[in-house]
Amino acid sequence: MYAGPVEQRVSLVTLGVSDYAQAKAFYEALGWSVALDIEETAFFQANGCVLVLWARDKLAKDTGISDDGARWGGIVLAHNVRSREEVEDVVEQARSNGAEITREPSETFFGGYAGACLYLDRHPWGVRHDPGFGLDDDGRVVLPDT
Amino acid sequence: MYAGPVEQRVSLVTLGVSDYAQAKAFYEALGWSVALDIEETAFFQANGCVLVLWARDKLAKDTGISDDGARWGGIVLAHNVRSREEVEDVVEQARSNGAEITREPSETFFGGYAGACLYLDRHPWGVRHDPGFGLDDDGRVVLPDT
Repeated sequence: MYAGPVEQRVSLVTLGVSDYAQAKAFYEALGWSVALDIEETAFFQANGCVLVLWARDKLAKDTGISDDGARWGGIVLAHNVRSREEVEDVVEQARSNGAEITREPSETFFGGYAGACLYLDRHPWGVRHDPGFGLDDDGRVVLPDT
Repeated sequence: MYAGPVEQRVSLVTLGVSDYAQAKAFYEALGWSVALDIEETAFFQANGCVLVLWARDKLAKDTGISDDGARWGGIVLAHNVRSREEVEDVVEQARSNGAEITREPSETFFGGYAGACLYLDRHPWGVRHDPGFGLDDDGRVVLPDT
């Protein structure tokens, strides 16, 4: 039995998509650039982790997960930004690219400001300004020392 | 209309959980340490992003997402490690903590090695050794230059 801890790491976030070309175009329309595009798999370098787009059926088969086609499995991703204005800007950009806004930007109960969107394939993304969390120059989130 | 690009960033990955204390104990049993634990919300500092555990009903309400209780919505997270042995170690540790293994560690079609597990609340996590991707000293994934 392995005794050591599992390192605290989210390396890849893979979104299973129904139409690869359309999904890639959606993220490119937000201004993202693909770093690697291999066999209909797109890898976007993010802040220490990588966002991957891959066909949902391939993803399910590869991981052995049974897929009943459901649209929400209890996971929400979020994109943190540096100001309330930027929350509104990103939500408007997502809206103009066809995202469904499920939460118009509004105050959070702990002093922040957030919106939420369903991007293509209804993948949920929050857009947040959490003033209690730092963002370093590379966009990495830094939790406060406690 | 906002003209600028949306920065390539996955800041928070929030897992909606059915039993907060049990979920926190599950990740702690893997060796993870909570950095902030506020009002039944656990924040784990990861490699530039933050993993959050929060009650699934609160998460759905907060983001305006309708929840039909489905267990897979097309997203898979992954934890990248430095060797095949470490893939096996992490999968065994997950198994001994009650995870369901949906893919026993095996070769990937592009020369890597990967397993996949459903952790508590059936959140899907791959455990991967992708030799083509770098991992820096802080565990951040670095895609090859192309």
